[in-house]
Amino acid sequence: MPKISFKGQQMPESPIRKLVPFADEAKKRGRKVYHLNIGQPDIETPEVALNAIRNYNHKVVEYSHSAGMLSLRERLTDYYKTVNIDVTSDQIIVGTGASEALLFAFQSIMDPEDEVIIPEPFYANYNGFATNAGINVTPIVSDIETGFALPPMEAFEKAITDKTKAILICNPNNPTGYLYSKEEMETLRDLVKKYDLYLIADEVYREFTYDGKTHYSAMYLDGIDDNVILIDSISKRYSACGARIGWLISRNKTVISTALKFAQARLSPPTFGQVLAEAAVDTPDEYFVAVIKEYIARRNAVVEGINNIEGAFCPNPSGAFYVVARLPIDDSDKFCRWLLEDFEFEYQTVMLAPASGFYSTPGKGKDEIRISYVLKVEDLKSSVKVLAEALKVYPGRTN
Amino acid sequence: MPKISFKGQQMPESPIRKLVPFADEAKKRGRKVYHLNIGQPDIETPEVALNAIRNYNHKVVEYSHSAGMLSLRERLTDYYKTVNIDVTSDQIIVGTGASEALLFAFQSIMDPEDEVIIPEPFYANYNGFATNAGINVTPIVSDIETGFALPPMEAFEKAITDKTKAILICNPNNPTGYLYSKEEMETLRDLVKKYDLYLIADEVYREFTYDGKTHYSAMYLDGIDDNVILIDSISKRYSACGARIGWLISRNKTVISTALKFAQARLSPPTFGQVLAEAAVDTPDEYFVAVIKEYIARRNAVVEGINNIEGAFCPNPSGAFYVVARLPIDDSDKFCRWLLEDFEFEYQTVMLAPASGFYSTPGKGKDEIRISYVLKVEDLKSSVKVLAEALKVYPGRTN
Repeated sequence: MPKISFKGQQMPESPIRKLVPFADEAKKRGRKVYHLNIGQPDIETPEVALNAIRNYNHKVVEYSHSAGMLSLRERLTDYYKTVNIDVTSDQIIVGTGASEALLFAFQSIMDPEDEVIIPEPFYANYNGFATNAGINVTPIVSDIETGFALPPMEAFEKAITDKTKAILICNPNNPTGYLYSKEEMETLRDLVKKYDLYLIADEVYREFTYDGKTHYSAMYLDGIDDNVILIDSISKRYSACGARIGWLISRNKTVISTALKFAQARLSPPTFGQVLAEAAVDTPDEYFVAVIKEYIARRNAVVEGINNIEGAFCPNPSGAFYVVARLPIDDSDKFCRWLLEDFEFEYQTVMLAPASGFYSTPGKGKDEIRISYVLKVEDLKSSVKVLAEALKVYPGRTN
Repeated sequence: MPKISFKGQQMPESPIRKLVPFADEAKKRGRKVYHLNIGQPDIETPEVALNAIRNYNHKVVEYSHSAGMLSLRERLTDYYKTVNIDVTSDQIIVGTGASEALLFAFQSIMDPEDEVIIPEPFYANYNGFATNAGINVTPIVSDIETGFALPPMEAFEKAITDKTKAILICNPNNPTGYLYSKEEMETLRDLVKKYDLYLIADEVYREFTYDGKTHYSAMYLDGIDDNVILIDSISKRYSACGARIGWLISRNKTVISTALKFAQARLSPPTFGQVLAEAAVDTPDEYFVAVIKEYIARRNAVVEGINNIEGAFCPNPSGAFYVVARLPIDDSDKFCRWLLEDFEFEYQTVMLAPASGFYSTPGKGKDEIRISYVLKVEDLKSSVKVLAEALKVYPGRTN
C-alpha cells in the first residue's frame, strides 16, 4: 500500500472533536449531554440574510471572482465604515471561511520553518493551519490570574528569532474571551514596527464586547499599514458558520496580490455564502443589541456559577463567548472524558473542551477547561450544576 | 516592509486569467468578445437543485460534519450506484470544490519534493495545487496527432523516480476532451500496481461523453482499491461551479482518515452548496440527454469549423467540453493577446486560452489553443468565423 505523507501524519487532531465519540456513546446510554465544547452558536441567523438565499434567482450558479464578488467586497467596506475602519474593496480577499483566509495569510508571508508568535492559550485550529503551511508556532504564555491579558513586551522580544515573521492575536480572544485594550494593541504596534513583522489580527468576534467596553481594531493602529493583516468572518457575527465566508484585509498591496494567487488557484469562494454575507450587512442594530444582552446573561451565569464552586476559578472576560476556567482537577483531558464516560447527574452530563488543546507548551492547561457559552441561560445553569456535582466525586480532584 | 513567502512568489498565475485585463479593454473599446477561454458552462443549473436552496428552512446556518453532511454523502452513494460504482458514505470526504479535494489528496499522500506524473497538456490549476502542496509535477507528453491518447506505458516508466508517489489523470480530459479507454485505464492499473503508486482520477466530466462512448472509471479497476483516489464534483455535472462542492473518494482507510484531518482543520465545507448538491442527485435523466445533445452540436460546430481553416487541425474528442486545436501561429500567448488587443472582425473578437499554459514542458503548446465550447452553437460558429478571419491577417502566421 502506498505511503501517506509526513504532513498527513503530523496534522493535529482537533482537541474538541476527539471527544465526540464519547459524547455519542453517552447519548446512546440515554444521557442528556450539554455541549459547551464548540463555538457553534444557537443564535438564529438574521432573517435578512436567510431571505437573500431564499430569493436567489440566478439560473446558473457561476464561479465568482477569485477575490470574492465585487458587490460583496463593496458592501463589506460599508460595514467597516460603521466600525470606523477605512478599507477599499481591492484590499479584501474573500475566503471559504476565516479558516481559508488565515491559511492564505500564513502561506503568503511565511516559508516552511518560519515562526509565528501567538499568545497561548490560542484557538486550537491555528495549529492545523500552521502545520498545513509548514510553519512553526511559538507560544507565549498568558496567565489566567490576569484574565489572560497580553503578555509583556519582553516576553515577545525573548521569543523573536530570525525565523519570526508574524505575531497572531485573536481579539476578542477565543478561547479566553479576553478583549485587548488600546494600550495592549499599541504594544503590538511597537513590536511589529521594531522587528519588521506582520501583525495578523483575527477579529471575528469584534461585535461581541460587554460591560460597555469597545473593541480596538488592529486597523486603527498608525504607521503599520504594511504590517497588518486583518482576518474576519460572518460566521459568528451573523451566526452563519456553515456559509463558510471569511476574508482577509490588508493595505499591503504585495500581501493582497500574493494572497490572490492562492485564491485564484482554488477558483472562487462559495457563491451562496457570499450572497448571504452581502445581505447580512443589512442586519438591523436591534439584532446585535438582543444578542449581546443574551451573551452577557449567559457569561454571567457561567462565570458566577463556576466561581461558586469551591476550588474553581473563572475570570470574567469582556468579549467573545468563551471562558477558560481553572478547576481542581489533575488532568483536563482525563476529566472531560470521564464526564462523558463515567459520570452523570440526574441523567445529564456536560461536554467541555480540555484547555490543554489550546496550549502549545507541553503540560500547560492541564487544570483548565474551555466553555463556549452558546446555550440558553437555563441550560448553562444546569450545566454548571452538573459540573459542580461532578467535581464532588471526580477521582482526580486535586484539592 | 516584511517579506512575502517564497511559495507566495512561486504560485503560478492562471494562464487564462492573465488575459482578462486585455479582454476588459477590448470590451471598453466596444468589441463583442466571445469567451471561449473558461470552463464556466452557460447551461442552467437544474431546477430541482436550485429549489432546495430556495426552500432552505433552517434557522441557523450551522457547520456541517467536516467530511460533509452525512445525508449528502449517503445520497452520493446512490448516485454512484447509477454509474455502477460501489462506495460507502465513509469513503467520501466532501471538499470546497474538487479543488480542495485534490489539494487534500496531494497533501495526504505526498511530501514536499515528491512527484506526481501527469500526462500533458493538463488542467493548468493542477500546477497551483502542486505548488501549494510543495510537490513537483512530472509531465509526460500526449500527442495531438493521436487526439491526446494516453502516452505508452514506457513513457510513464521512464518518468518514474523514487520520488514518484502518484499518477494523476483527468478523464474525460480537460483541456483535450480525450476520453480514456478501458485498455488505457488498465495500463494505468498495471503501472500503479507495479510501482506501488496512487492513481488520482479526476472524473468531474464523467457524464459528458459523446458518440455512444461510455466512461470507464478508475473505480472499476480491480486489485488497486488502496491505490485509487477519485476526485469528483457537482460543478460541471449540474452546472453549479459557484456552489463549490467537490469530493474525494477512496477505499483506502488511511487516505480517508488522513484527508479527514485536513478537512477538520478547516471545519466544514459550505452548507448551502451541500444542500444543493444533495438535491441535484435527483436531476432527471432528460436534463442530461438535452445537455449532451447540446454539447455534441457545439463540439461539432467547433471541430468542423476549425478543421475547415487552412493550416489548422482539431481532433474530435469524445468527452468534456474542451478541445485543444493546432493553429498556424508562432506563439499562442502572443496570438491570444493579439486577438484581444489588435484584432476585430465586424466589431467582434474571441478570447481563447493559450495551450502553453496547459503544458509543463517549456516550449510545448506554442501553436495550440484550448477552446471551451460553453456558448450556444450560433455564437460558436461566429467565433470560429472570427478566428478564421484573424488567422488571415495575424502577423505571426507560420504557414
